Amino acid sequence: MDDSSKKIVTGDAGYVLEDVPHFSDYIPDLPTYSNPLQDHPAYCVVKQYFVHDDDTVTQKVIAHKNGPRGLHFRRAGPRQKVYFEPDEVHACIVTCGGLCPGLNTVIREIVCGLYHIYGVKKVLGIDGGYKGFYSRNTVPLSPKVVNDIHKRGGTILGTSRGGHDTSKIVDSIQDRGINQVYIIGGDGTQKGASVIFEEIKRRGLKVAVAGIPKTIDNDIPVIDRSFGFDTAVEEAQRAINAAHVEAESGENGIGLVKVMGRYSGFIAMYATLASRDVDCCLIPESPFYLEGAGGLLEYIERRLKEMGHMVIVIAEGAGQELLSECMHSADKKDASGNKLLQDVGLWLSQQIKEHFTKKDKMTINLKYIDPTYMIRAVPSNASDNVYSTLLAQSAVHGAMAGYTGFTIGLVNGRHSYIPFYRITEKQNKVVITDRMWARLLSSTNQPSFLSAKDCIEDKREDEAPTQLLDDQISPDMSDLVKKEICCD
Amino acid sequence: MDDSSKKIVTGDAGYVLEDVPHFSDYIPDLPTYSNPLQDHPAYCVVKQYFVHDDDTVTQKVIAHKNGPRGLHFRRAGPRQKVYFEPDEVHACIVTCGGLCPGLNTVIREIVCGLYHIYGVKKVLGIDGGYKGFYSRNTVPLSPKVVNDIHKRGGTILGTSRGGHDTSKIVDSIQDRGINQVYIIGGDGTQKGASVIFEEIKRRGLKVAVAGIPKTIDNDIPVIDRSFGFDTAVEEAQRAINAAHVEAESGENGIGLVKVMGRYSGFIAMYATLASRDVDCCLIPESPFYLEGAGGLLEYIERRLKEMGHMVIVIAEGAGQELLSECMHSADKKDASGNKLLQDVGLWLSQQIKEHFTKKDKMTINLKYIDPTYMIRAVPSNASDNVYSTLLAQSAVHGAMAGYTGFTIGLVNGRHSYIPFYRITEKQNKVVITDRMWARLLSSTNQPSFLSAKDCIEDKREDEAPTQLLDDQISPDMSDLVKKEICCD
Amino acid sequence: MDDSSKKIVTGDAGYVLEDVPHFSDYIPDLPTYSNPLQDHPAYCVVKQYFVHDDDTVTQKVIAHKNGPRGLHFRRAGPRQKVYFEPDEVHACIVTCGGLCPGLNTVIREIVCGLYHIYGVKKVLGIDGGYKGFYSRNTVPLSPKVVNDIHKRGGTILGTSRGGHDTSKIVDSIQDRGINQVYIIGGDGTQKGASVIFEEIKRRGLKVAVAGIPKTIDNDIPVIDRSFGFDTAVEEAQRAINAAHVEAESGENGIGLVKVMGRYSGFIAMYATLASRDVDCCLIPESPFYLEGAGGLLEYIERRLKEMGHMVIVIAEGAGQELLSECMHSADKKDASGNKLLQDVGLWLSQQIKEHFTKKDKMTINLKYIDPTYMIRAVPSNASDNVYSTLLAQSAVHGAMAGYTGFTIGLVNGRHSYIPFYRITEKQNKVVITDRMWARLLSSTNQPSFLSAKDCIEDKREDEAPTQLLDDQISPDMSDLVKKEICCD
Amino acid sequence: MDDSSKKIVTGDAGYVLEDVPHFSDYIPDLPTYSNPLQDHPAYCVVKQYFVHDDDTVTQKVIAHKNGPRGLHFRRAGPRQKVYFEPDEVHACIVTCGGLCPGLNTVIREIVCGLYHIYGVKKVLGIDGGYKGFYSRNTVPLSPKVVNDIHKRGGTILGTSRGGHDTSKIVDSIQDRGINQVYIIGGDGTQKGASVIFEEIKRRGLKVAVAGIPKTIDNDIPVIDRSFGFDTAVEEAQRAINAAHVEAESGENGIGLVKVMGRYSGFIAMYATLASRDVDCCLIPESPFYLEGAGGLLEYIERRLKEMGHMVIVIAEGAGQELLSECMHSADKKDASGNKLLQDVGLWLSQQIKEHFTKKDKMTINLKYIDPTYMIRAVPSNASDNVYSTLLAQSAVHGAMAGYTGFTIGLVNGRHSYIPFYRITEKQNKVVITDRMWARLLSSTNQPSFLSAKDCIEDKREDEAPTQLLDDQISPDMSDLVKKEICCD
Repeated sequence: MDDSSKKIVTGDAGYVLEDVPHFSDYIPDLPTYSNPLQDHPAYCVVKQYFVHDDDTVTQKVIAHKNGPRGLHFRRAGPRQKVYFEPDEVHACIVTCGGLCPGLNTVIREIVCGLYHIYGVKKVLGIDGGYKGFYSRNTVPLSPKVVNDIHKRGGTILGTSRGGHDTSKIVDSIQDRGINQVYIIGGDGTQKGASVIFEEIKRRGLKVAVAGIPKTIDNDIPVIDRSFGFDTAVEEAQRAINAAHVEAESGENGIGLVKVMGRYSGFIAMYATLASRDVDCCLIPESPFYLEGAGGLLEYIERRLKEMGHMVIVIAEGAGQELLSECMHSADKKDASGNKLLQDVGLWLSQQIKEHFTKKDKMTINLKYIDPTYMIRAVPSNASDNVYSTLLAQSAVHGAMAGYTGFTIGLVNGRHSYIPFYRITEKQNKVVITDRMWARLLSSTNQPSFLSAKDCIEDKREDEAPTQLLDDQISPDMSDLVKKEICCD
Repeated sequence: MDDSSKKIVTGDAGYVLEDVPHFSDYIPDLPTYSNPLQDHPAYCVVKQYFVHDDDTVTQKVIAHKNGPRGLHFRRAGPRQKVYFEPDEVHACIVTCGGLCPGLNTVIREIVCGLYHIYGVKKVLGIDGGYKGFYSRNTVPLSPKVVNDIHKRGGTILGTSRGGHDTSKIVDSIQDRGINQVYIIGGDGTQKGASVIFEEIKRRGLKVAVAGIPKTIDNDIPVIDRSFGFDTAVEEAQRAINAAHVEAESGENGIGLVKVMGRYSGFIAMYATLASRDVDCCLIPESPFYLEGAGGLLEYIERRLKEMGHMVIVIAEGAGQELLSECMHSADKKDASGNKLLQDVGLWLSQQIKEHFTKKDKMTINLKYIDPTYMIRAVPSNASDNVYSTLLAQSAVHGAMAGYTGFTIGLVNGRHSYIPFYRITEKQNKVVITDRMWARLLSSTNQPSFLSAKDCIEDKREDEAPTQLLDDQISPDMSDLVKKEICCD
Repeated sequence: MDDSSKKIVTGDAGYVLEDVPHFSDYIPDLPTYSNPLQDHPAYCVVKQYFVHDDDTVTQKVIAHKNGPRGLHFRRAGPRQKVYFEPDEVHACIVTCGGLCPGLNTVIREIVCGLYHIYGVKKVLGIDGGYKGFYSRNTVPLSPKVVNDIHKRGGTILGTSRGGHDTSKIVDSIQDRGINQVYIIGGDGTQKGASVIFEEIKRRGLKVAVAGIPKTIDNDIPVIDRSFGFDTAVEEAQRAINAAHVEAESGENGIGLVKVMGRYSGFIAMYATLASRDVDCCLIPESPFYLEGAGGLLEYIERRLKEMGHMVIVIAEGAGQELLSECMHSADKKDASGNKLLQDVGLWLSQQIKEHFTKKDKMTINLKYIDPTYMIRAVPSNASDNVYSTLLAQSAVHGAMAGYTGFTIGLVNGRHSYIPFYRITEKQNKVVITDRMWARLLSSTNQPSFLSAKDCIEDKREDEAPTQLLDDQISPDMSDLVKKEICCD
Repeated sequence: MDDSSKKIVTGDAGYVLEDVPHFSDYIPDLPTYSNPLQDHPAYCVVKQYFVHDDDTVTQKVIAHKNGPRGLHFRRAGPRQKVYFEPDEVHACIVTCGGLCPGLNTVIREIVCGLYHIYGVKKVLGIDGGYKGFYSRNTVPLSPKVVNDIHKRGGTILGTSRGGHDTSKIVDSIQDRGINQVYIIGGDGTQKGASVIFEEIKRRGLKVAVAGIPKTIDNDIPVIDRSFGFDTAVEEAQRAINAAHVEAESGENGIGLVKVMGRYSGFIAMYATLASRDVDCCLIPESPFYLEGAGGLLEYIERRLKEMGHMVIVIAEGAGQELLSECMHSADKKDASGNKLLQDVGLWLSQQIKEHFTKKDKMTINLKYIDPTYMIRAVPSNASDNVYSTLLAQSAVHGAMAGYTGFTIGLVNGRHSYIPFYRITEKQNKVVITDRMWARLLSSTNQPSFLSAKDCIEDKREDEAPTQLLDDQISPDMSDLVKKEICCD
């Protein structure tokens, strides 16, 4: 996206607002209506129903006395004027990508929010992800249909990956007369939503496109945390507990647990911090090596000698360089289909077993647990249920108010409308030069897999920013440079 | 506390910092030492170990383009210089008041933080709350002793209410040579901590007093949420589910659940929002009445006729005016010991049963569930475990750095040192003129128990502040006026 | 019931069979049909589909070399000949009394059993217990309707107590053309079923009446255990754990848990044995007293002095003599409505508190937990799900085969058809002169509340039976004399 | 074992008792002592403490009027006379083989039973299975040490496989002066125990050898069920639920769950019956095939077309013939280490994926879940806790009474002493010609993988026994011929 299409507003003392698109940007003279919320009995007690037009949410919570105010986003919530009449609205909802606890809650609350707050009756579920727009059935959604779905895992709409033919999707939207599109999915999905929005804008349609970012890995930047993440960390404890019990009961027992996290290790890190039973946590952001001094195998051997057992948690995306290196040579030997080894957990199990067999030094008892699908499929916990509810309602308020091309997210505890590019241009990652990761290292006692030289050099080259310090409970969403250390 | 003893710093554009006390405020020329953290292997990778001296945390996330910057607190975290040598430190930990999930995690992490990060070996547990300082035994605490305690509910130190003889406590601290006091407890306890701090300061002792606020009700202001609250809301779901099943299975079934919340209804509100099975949520902040038009009994009757069953959630502190009114007359009749009726849940059960019996209109089946002690006693969930860990570490960093007379808390996602008076001068409450409560009303469809007149008047008298709007996931900790509506 | 109407068969070596009624007992010349099961694809692999006509189930598992063979029941299961054609059957299901985990599973499996095994399409749910036959709606039931109900607690049919007007019920059965009646409920309900059967027989109707005994208390004799009991014991652990945590955390902490068990203490006993955290278990079968030597209060005081805390589990029916004695005197003081005190848990809490307050000896911290409705409302666990499934199928097989006036139950691990009178003529109770109760006493160390004299006398007067010894995992259902010790 | 060493007693009407060895069989003139139980305060209330010498437990619950009485075992429980004085006893406990819920409960209750009932103080834990007798440390066990272990999964003693050098073990027993050996383990372990007993008898030692059979698979014959099995079935529900959610959410979603069951499919069968969400259950006892009419792949395709999704549960030992066939050819291609494919779950996943890719007919979404270690490592549920407690106590009573060379087990609900050979000579298996398996087929609608010809032939060749019918809730342990159908 070129910068010219960004909506940037600046103010005093270094204040910057990155605003989201609005119908009025490309459709002139649209009529507006009073927000029906003000006649809602439940809202009778609220002193001021509507978000003030000037309200923005700061991304910068750590402030210096006379420092700049920094980046802001538009605050989410109901507006005095809406751009749709209730019976004019024809909304649709689509869920894309892998399962994540809370999907059904988001669906439920978009339907109920539209229905109960704005009196909207026509809501359509698109079956089976993006491709459902043109190849599958749709499901009419009403408060009754969605009443109990938040107690179930998965998504009642079904989901799929890929299937993104922008033009066919927008055709389908136009053909069906849909004018509000709620898109729940990860960063690929949100990129898709951005392209759909651009096409809709190009065609000049009055169709609001609202994204609700979904990632169990918590790898979407800017926002405090993604829905379902909390549930996933909770559920991961079961597997870690089991690994711990297995490890303790066997001679030189090793419990190895693989959790989700293709590009970022938040689940692994938080599950490790919550559990306190983990002796080693391996994530994509922190490269590691097996052999030699300071390597994983040496650490395992030392730990087993000290304690008699250990627990390792590995994110699915960790160690991919090692794995592909290893696979490369393997490829030569057996051409056909040992795809199974692409699972880093199975691969690492194999490596550890072989090492200790070869050396004939120690009998080990390794138990490998992959709880991925058991985690993804649970219903969301109470905290994620409330969070998903508010996300859905904020999305509805935004679309009704004529905002479009936005994604909804919690920024420093406040719901905000965020331009798509902000959450798709890069990924949220664990910053291994940050104190949170240091805390983890300190709790596991694992090596950093960095030579002393790495540490020193790295520090020299980057004297700077206080901002890298991070004390927050929710993962770092700051917009700052998150440089990764290269371990060579 | 008189304002003169507050430490206030102001800056550009309406910036205000309310700082916490420090040894250097009343003891001159104390030696300082290098923070041992910088030699810790785990922290080798961190680019900057220490919190910058100028870092502060804003309390105001919703900003206007040219609005004032508002109140700030000192950021928590390790400092370059510490005021204790490791073997000089003699710390103690005390837990006071009711049980709350996470107590053992906080204890564990104070011990482990002191031990593993700062090399402190002498940590004492005070048995049985404040009075344990002078009347009971103490327990030596080490990482080994506390290793598994975070998986258990309750507090291994025991707890009690009251027992606060400041002078005996400070004598005991002095006699034992304790120089770091970690006090975990609710607002009464924090007030006690404040007085203990004042006495210590008066005596000129180099003893750090650090509070970790504990309240399962989430009724402490300023901070985002209190540890254990998330677990409590989760656990309350069980009782609500059971109430729902019971209600659905009986003729005119009513499931009534009492949850914690003496002065504030956060658990009731969040549990209701998370569950979506609740038809009526009663909290201390929102007065209600039983009889007549718009009253609770009328609503119950209507709901039973429509749906055949209903679920009511009541916070223990709700309806106390009604109850004491009712009790007053009762008092005259039986002078001795009908303390049982002080339980609002039992009282309300009685009232509802009597109403429907007297009128002979309807058979009802009311099932009353009081899950209080089952909620309080569970171990903390993963989210509260991580949160409690960081709270404990932040407290340790603060005490080591010479800060004292502070409480630790999460403010907009960042750990901060907060002066005691800020969290004890009033209570955090559900603001029933806020959108969060409106959301609840909208989800339950219950009456607001306010006459139309109330609503209108109330709005007229308070035209003001956008800030009252609140979209955040964590309850409102804003420092703004939270006026309660008087229902007359 | 007079003995003449019992169907008794005798055989060699003291073999006795107590058989159940059959259509052929009172309707001559009914046509029979081939059991459609033999054409069912799933049953193709079964070597012999049908229960042999001679199969009976012994009630006596403990045998002596040359002892008598004792009582037998008819084995449950499909028969070669059935007395209904599939489209002739019009079945109905009714659930009566309190909730119990597994009710929905039983409903589901009667519907699915009739449908899938026998091709029966017409099944009706009676809404709201017995009185639903004449005062409420009915619900058509099909495999689709009941598909997921086993994952929910409660009963989708609703339930009620009482409402038993035999003649109106049989009229309703006749009017609707119902010819199979499945009645799920406790001993009162089964007595009702017996009377309904007698009336149906009197009218000469070809209507099968099959009872499925339901009692969360496990107080129905003859059968191994009642469905839902296992789930209830499991769920009771939560409350006991919480009580234990609360007790350990307070000074002289007492955790008091009331569980179900109006006339028999099986849930209390098994929950105590499973938990191992309980210091005193009070059940209806074992009278206790508060004051004086060997009394409960003395024991509590001793235990608190030794351990600092304790957990008491009390069945709701325990101590009723004490309570009514106490209430009697109280009655004089406050005439009106202190019904709340009829709760033995609240009453005992009060007694204990008063005792320790009055004597001013000890501060105590008593926490009372009543998890009753949280236990009753959970969905059944896996074990109860399988058990309920088989009970339902056995009932269906029996009705199809023309048996009537029977209840279904597991006897020594085999499903059997049992005459109503056998399970309604008395209640299953914990035998406190049995080794199972001795095990409990030994695990809690509580006093037996019997004087030494009681013990000796009691033993003298009853020299007899080995059979009283009981080593079985499932509670004793033996038909033997279960004399209770009178404690005066 | 030759028949001459069996202890067989016969009686009237076909009564047979297979007794267990006793010290008096090979050591003459041993002194006996009064059982201290009779002075135990808890047992004061029991009318008759001791099991009658003549009590035996029938294995045959299904009886015919004049049929033979069949096989019996000696009833377990305390005896009037014991063969050890309390301070003479030196007991040891060893756990062998894989983890199983309840191990810690059994350990706890052997220790507590010996200590509290018989006053035995010397109990030793052997660390790490059989080989721990000579190669590892031992752990002194006391009620205090084992107090809370039943709430944890795994075994505090550690475990291992193999390591059975009988002579070194018996040397070690003799050297350490151990005279009671409690051996907890599967059939291999019980065979080992049998050999150890024979050697002890050969050496003429007064050392009691008591086995407690442990198998999460429930594959030990004679006994009603093995401890931990119930917990395992419960826990397997989680994985099946997750598979169901995943399957429903994806296009042509297939959820595949592998559960334990190397030689017998009880966990798979019971988990399937309890869950009701499973469309296909594959077990070792029921051979299946992939390709062609009536094959698994055809069924999957049909099911996906009908329902859009399906759940498959496979026991780890199912389909091993297919797998090794398949592996055989594969072996030729890649000689080295594709051991991963020996996992039938991974193999079947691969086969299904390849089939649907190759044919290019359908996109499928297969999710494979292996919850094995998460199931094994959970603490036992309430039901298994009580069961394990009674097993342990029965073993203690037996050893104290001089019985040896026995295993303890529940037979038709009564605890019995069983000769080793009875439980090791064959395995308990799901009888696929039994009604329980038919019920499963009927609930899943899966094909029987038998041709019509198989069915007919099979029935013809075996006209016989009613006894094959099995209606019991606990798996069939009957001693009857359980012929497996050969599927060729």
